[in-house]
Amino acid sequence: MNILPTALLQDLQSIAGDKGYRAATERDTQDARRRYIGTTQHVFRPADPHTTSRLVQRCAEARLPIIPMGGATGLVAGHIMREPSASIFLSTERMNKIRTINAVDRQLVAEAGVVLANVQKAAADSHLLFPLSLASEGSCSIGGNLATNAGGVQVLRYGNTRDLVLGVEAVMPNGSVLNTLSPLRKNNTGYDLKNLLIGSEGSLGLITAASLKLFPAIKQQCTALCPVASPAAALALLTLMQDLLSEFISAFELIAGQGLRFLQQHFPQLSQPISPEPQWSVLIELGSSAAHDLQTLLERALATALDKNLISDALICQSAQQRQQLWDLREHIPLANAKVGAIVSFDISLPLSELSHFIETASSAIKQFDSNLRINCFGHVGDGNLHFNIFPAEGSTAAIYTEQQARIRESIYDLVAKLGGSFSAEHGVGRDKIAEMKRYADPTKLALMQAIKHTIDPQGIFNPGAVVAVN
Amino acid sequence: MNILPTALLQDLQSIAGDKGYRAATERDTQDARRRYIGTTQHVFRPADPHTTSRLVQRCAEARLPIIPMGGATGLVAGHIMREPSASIFLSTERMNKIRTINAVDRQLVAEAGVVLANVQKAAADSHLLFPLSLASEGSCSIGGNLATNAGGVQVLRYGNTRDLVLGVEAVMPNGSVLNTLSPLRKNNTGYDLKNLLIGSEGSLGLITAASLKLFPAIKQQCTALCPVASPAAALALLTLMQDLLSEFISAFELIAGQGLRFLQQHFPQLSQPISPEPQWSVLIELGSSAAHDLQTLLERALATALDKNLISDALICQSAQQRQQLWDLREHIPLANAKVGAIVSFDISLPLSELSHFIETASSAIKQFDSNLRINCFGHVGDGNLHFNIFPAEGSTAAIYTEQQARIRESIYDLVAKLGGSFSAEHGVGRDKIAEMKRYADPTKLALMQAIKHTIDPQGIFNPGAVVAVN
Repeated sequence: MNILPTALLQDLQSIAGDKGYRAATERDTQDARRRYIGTTQHVFRPADPHTTSRLVQRCAEARLPIIPMGGATGLVAGHIMREPSASIFLSTERMNKIRTINAVDRQLVAEAGVVLANVQKAAADSHLLFPLSLASEGSCSIGGNLATNAGGVQVLRYGNTRDLVLGVEAVMPNGSVLNTLSPLRKNNTGYDLKNLLIGSEGSLGLITAASLKLFPAIKQQCTALCPVASPAAALALLTLMQDLLSEFISAFELIAGQGLRFLQQHFPQLSQPISPEPQWSVLIELGSSAAHDLQTLLERALATALDKNLISDALICQSAQQRQQLWDLREHIPLANAKVGAIVSFDISLPLSELSHFIETASSAIKQFDSNLRINCFGHVGDGNLHFNIFPAEGSTAAIYTEQQARIRESIYDLVAKLGGSFSAEHGVGRDKIAEMKRYADPTKLALMQAIKHTIDPQGIFNPGAVVAVN
Repeated sequence: MNILPTALLQDLQSIAGDKGYRAATERDTQDARRRYIGTTQHVFRPADPHTTSRLVQRCAEARLPIIPMGGATGLVAGHIMREPSASIFLSTERMNKIRTINAVDRQLVAEAGVVLANVQKAAADSHLLFPLSLASEGSCSIGGNLATNAGGVQVLRYGNTRDLVLGVEAVMPNGSVLNTLSPLRKNNTGYDLKNLLIGSEGSLGLITAASLKLFPAIKQQCTALCPVASPAAALALLTLMQDLLSEFISAFELIAGQGLRFLQQHFPQLSQPISPEPQWSVLIELGSSAAHDLQTLLERALATALDKNLISDALICQSAQQRQQLWDLREHIPLANAKVGAIVSFDISLPLSELSHFIETASSAIKQFDSNLRINCFGHVGDGNLHFNIFPAEGSTAAIYTEQQARIRESIYDLVAKLGGSFSAEHGVGRDKIAEMKRYADPTKLALMQAIKHTIDPQGIFNPGAVVAVN
């Protein structure tokens, strides 16, 4: 069943050219969390939109499913098709050039396959900043970042990927090429197709290049770690910091004591600056593109926070090395989680006004399932985005909780929905959260999504089964 | 022809209820620039989305065109249908409540008919800021701002309307109600329908409410007027200011000597601080939500600009009254233009790197048509957005240039397109710029727009003839 007819395979190979084809590897067919194995066996890797268009046209003729693929770092099985029918990966890996960079326009045009870290570097080389920053930046592609509207640690200041994009080039399911790669900041000429493609997870076409906004480089930075009594105190601290330092806040991350204990266990070489590990702490970073004395500003603001009992201590970094140590801690949290092995991981967002209530209520709900379950709740609290992850009791493994998984998932998602939150803050829907889409999304939204999908991709060849379940 | 069948009119009136109907007035049927008279005679003004939905369903049954209407301040004839067939206005004027405001979530839900100034005021009453600000803020509606993705004077810092919206409620052409009125900053669950509706100019449904982002209130402001030698110097000044003051720049507006001369003539009561009026000047405003000494920062930055010969002088406001005088000048420029009477007005955007070249080239092109034509070029130069308006020779009137209009328009728009600019930066397409859409838009974009329009509004009843010309 999963066999591409030889004639079709040869046709596609001949369109793609010598370097344009490879067999799929385990890294392609297994999802980043190693839960699923996909059935897609062939990787086509065109080097330009024109070849991409010809490949797409040939697939359309044959009604052959196309799975767009960037860095394959997604967390919701967006590129893992498990149906036994034949399909191909359409990889952007050879579309990996920075086409232009213009410091006056503060714009960069990157092809979809450029690794995020290389976009950041190209901007930095021009003394500018591309602020999208996330754990997988060394391997994820900018095209994948657009396809999933990636978030990360600087959303509070710069927004999600969507807010960083001026235009896209994309090959549509009929093979036509959309080109809106403009550097313009204002352009009110018709429907916003760019944002329709961003976040559509490869279900409406393949983004082949992006026009990206650049920002003034950050010249000053100041970073601090502050123990707080509770998530509620963290939120009060956020409000205070926004009042006192608004324009400069780049990151505001919540860290749970459980996360620090996992780090002690699995990454003992990472130095933990506060001992014993605080039950809750906040990593705050200020940045400025001009020469302000951020250290003094932060010291004063944190002194006010101490006076108001919002924090019990404050460790303000005195060197780039200290700063790096703090970020190393933060960025190793997901790696430690992976080593412990979660029963269920949630990437949720809540209205800020409900966030503290959610953490309390959800934590007691989990403890009612089993009082020995461990919770590591961390994330981009300034954006209302929590990674709320449930782990087995000490000495136990996730595997023995398989039966409880579905009930835990439903109880947490129901609570999130009740409080006006979202079951996917930054990871997307992919194939993993299709059931949640059906259960929680606005019915009119679902109907419109299906109608748009059907119009743009009438044969349903682009990433079938992902994001939108077409009836 | 333009007669609504009595039975249908009565049906609609009975759905709308007592206060839900009025006859159209001249203000409804004439566009803001008084160039066109529309044929729509009936205004339906439901007070809620449910009644709106029932009206839309009845119109859909009868295939009756619906012209959505907010404050009727648009500049591209978006609500002026001139075909002789029957149609109705669907006005948001009675959906004029602020439903909720939440300071912790920094979110406000406004119904579509709330006047922009009242949204601003509601935010200010909660010590927060809704930054959208434009000349017609006292009469335009927030729903209309969304429908046209309005720009204004603070885009440089806060973005266009699109960047200020978290979600929408809208009645779709089949009567279904879309509800995405969430306060969430991160929510990656499917296609971005919000941004599809924003900027669709009433052609895909009626936005009935919006979830809006609020920002920290501005506590400090500092404003200056600086004569500059040329638009190129203005842009160099922008770069310098962004290097030195990046986070604080709220507005950066270019003003031409011609605009100041029009003001002297038509608004002599407005005091002009620099005499004789400079050929070019820039209005700069800094703002901060925290207690920074903006005056000192601006003084230092402008001293550097003087040293570098980017500016020849700097008038830094010493009082709120002085600031208001500068903004009064800026905001009366369009009013003076209206009194003089333009031959053609352009609302264009250019890549910043092409902006100075454009002004030079376009100005000589205009002088070649007729060396006595006058040009008032002003606008949001920090966003690359120019209002480039052509006026008759002194003592003459626009009417006698009717024949040249089309050629002037085409020559300027062709130049804009050649330089990678847009024929509509912030006003939209409406019915006024349909020809430019066909001439300059990406063909794949046009085809996708038509396909989406047809899917969402298969009978073409929502604002037919606006934005997207359906074949």
